Amino acid sequence: MEFPQSMPRRHMLAGSAAALGTLGLASWTSGAHAQVAAAKPLPAYAGWKDPKALIVHSSNTMETRRSAFGTSVLTPTDQLYVRNNLPPPDASILDNRDAWSISIEGVKNPRTFSLGELKTMGLETVATVLQCSGNGRGFFPSKPSGTQWTVGAAGCVFWSGVPVRTVVAALGGGVDGTVYLTGTGGEKLPDGVDPLSVLVERSVPIEALGDAILAWELNGEPIPLAHGGPLRLVVPGYQGVNNIKYIKRLALTPQQSKARIMASSYRLSPPGTKSSPDQRSVWEMVVKSWINGPLSEEGPLKAGMTQIHGVAFAGTQPVQGVEVSVDGGATWSRAQLIGPDLGRFAWRQFVLPVRLTPGTHVLASRATDAAGHAQPAEREENIRGYNNNSWRDHAVTVTVA
Amino acid sequence: MEFPQSMPRRHMLAGSAAALGTLGLASWTSGAHAQVAAAKPLPAYAGWKDPKALIVHSSNTMETRRSAFGTSVLTPTDQLYVRNNLPPPDASILDNRDAWSISIEGVKNPRTFSLGELKTMGLETVATVLQCSGNGRGFFPSKPSGTQWTVGAAGCVFWSGVPVRTVVAALGGGVDGTVYLTGTGGEKLPDGVDPLSVLVERSVPIEALGDAILAWELNGEPIPLAHGGPLRLVVPGYQGVNNIKYIKRLALTPQQSKARIMASSYRLSPPGTKSSPDQRSVWEMVVKSWINGPLSEEGPLKAGMTQIHGVAFAGTQPVQGVEVSVDGGATWSRAQLIGPDLGRFAWRQFVLPVRLTPGTHVLASRATDAAGHAQPAEREENIRGYNNNSWRDHAVTVTVA
Repeated sequence: MEFPQSMPRRHMLAGSAAALGTLGLASWTSGAHAQVAAAKPLPAYAGWKDPKALIVHSSNTMETRRSAFGTSVLTPTDQLYVRNNLPPPDASILDNRDAWSISIEGVKNPRTFSLGELKTMGLETVATVLQCSGNGRGFFPSKPSGTQWTVGAAGCVFWSGVPVRTVVAALGGGVDGTVYLTGTGGEKLPDGVDPLSVLVERSVPIEALGDAILAWELNGEPIPLAHGGPLRLVVPGYQGVNNIKYIKRLALTPQQSKARIMASSYRLSPPGTKSSPDQRSVWEMVVKSWINGPLSEEGPLKAGMTQIHGVAFAGTQPVQGVEVSVDGGATWSRAQLIGPDLGRFAWRQFVLPVRLTPGTHVLASRATDAAGHAQPAEREENIRGYNNNSWRDHAVTVTVA
Repeated sequence: MEFPQSMPRRHMLAGSAAALGTLGLASWTSGAHAQVAAAKPLPAYAGWKDPKALIVHSSNTMETRRSAFGTSVLTPTDQLYVRNNLPPPDASILDNRDAWSISIEGVKNPRTFSLGELKTMGLETVATVLQCSGNGRGFFPSKPSGTQWTVGAAGCVFWSGVPVRTVVAALGGGVDGTVYLTGTGGEKLPDGVDPLSVLVERSVPIEALGDAILAWELNGEPIPLAHGGPLRLVVPGYQGVNNIKYIKRLALTPQQSKARIMASSYRLSPPGTKSSPDQRSVWEMVVKSWINGPLSEEGPLKAGMTQIHGVAFAGTQPVQGVEVSVDGGATWSRAQLIGPDLGRFAWRQFVLPVRLTPGTHVLASRATDAAGHAQPAEREENIRGYNNNSWRDHAVTVTVA
């Protein structure tokens, strides 16, 4: 199968993946190919993604390569990571997007809306960092089970949809005693298991309602299936798992969901403990940054001037500043924030010009947010490997010739 | 040829276009297929684009459909219009992007830089509206020759690269008497014609230098060939033709280029005149807006509430406000600007909730910029069909059942 030379390489490969999909070969599972050392192919539902930009961990977990982030003002959808807790619903749910329905509960006048109706109610666009709470798990020396993400289970994207506050207000506001916003995903649950053990249902503090949107557009296009289309709950500043895909129910609730994904998973469980509901959940993201370039993955860098660049974000807080070190954290210089400020939920690009001499250098960055939180040197240890924002873990070693 | 159901339709079609390209069938020209009424296929060098989002006018001119803009916070690269004045260079120029070289002239210490060297000198990201100066030509009753663009020869995108001011400063600044910034494209010129009759070389006032960048990244990815990669001059706020693709020479000059594309084409020539260098060139964009939804292209809208939305921009000026009319301009209401403000060179999204009654309605928008310029009712007549910002021309008629 040959393609015209002028077609970007990623699309040649995407075409190949599509061809594999036709033959049923792309519908593999992690286990089936565990003995194959070569790069895993993209699963069929994400076959349109850029395979050169992604590390395929499994059919439900794909990570953006650090080298693919570029200067990272935003993450193109074909390079954005994927993390599904269950396999996505059948693609036929996109056949008539406007017919998708969602039940709004815990309000004075509960009712069901079609997506077509939601589109008449309001419109907002917000840029957010979307990040898996396990991003950086691969740096934990304790090797918690789960996908060994490094930096690429994150991206900065635009969402468009209707503000949740608008929908709630239209239904008379919340009923008394509701203190959580609880979203339920529309995935098909496997047979023969306790539904609560697999149901994708998450609760966030009701304060998050003010910024949340029910989104139907990602980066200017209808949300693809892999990212939760036709309708996704976006909770700006909160870890990815709280941004419920294929959302079919949104409720103001007095209690947190009893689903396992809320009750015990996604908790910051200290070493030596078992996960339990009294431990902190992975809600707001914490202040974090990393360097995306230069990297010496493909050979030593040239000695001389270079521009160290990366991204920084801080959950619901604006980024105040970023410092960069070229000596593994012994000394630090203030980087410049560049590019458009997409709002407090987005990341900022930073850059620092430095002169690199021949040898090996450890490049690190540490961000500070507007509330005064500084990115720490060390991760907060926890048995599931969540919320890693250690600047030391995210440093990169480059060789310069 | 079958594809997995979960693959977005655009990629199925892109695959088909790629297959056509393999057979050499995608390298058609406008003339060869002039009698074919069906939609034209994408040319091979743009075969990775979303064919459902684009109107293919010719192998060098492709327009984004109004219905594909969505809420339009930014334009995804696979939906962005293409307008090439000459066929693009061979795709092999992307084999080693960092080896691309550009000559910087009209400075105290002129020299040639490789793209790899430029990347060490500085980094900036800017969001700009990229718009063909002929966008809206299709609305001129005089039917000027050229592509009959309506609204889709425009997009809002992110560029990353090095500021031109940084490069010029590194070379000692401009020599005396230079009042233009002149960029020359690296296209291969056809044999047997006067080079100046086809050379893509444009001059802009030197004031534009302060905002201009030499860009290697578009929307977070290396610039594709179709959009001027590996290196493009971006002149924020200026019509597309001034943003030189495949740039191989950037000069501070005392005079404007003598190339036809500068000297006589792209001039605002009043009716009854011939194009000449004393007429205004298409430089800064003028204040403009249009509505992207709702549209009734696929059947009547439902009566009731809807959200009228669109985009507004004003060259180098921030947008001050947008008004929307649902009665063809008889009465106006102030719309709300929504979404992140990507800076004064980007467009703003606007929205107005309205209740539409059954019947036919003419929806219109008119923008005002921070300098007080208002989008006019009528276009400025000119024989080439440039700079159309008439709000009347850009209105849409919708039917409501």
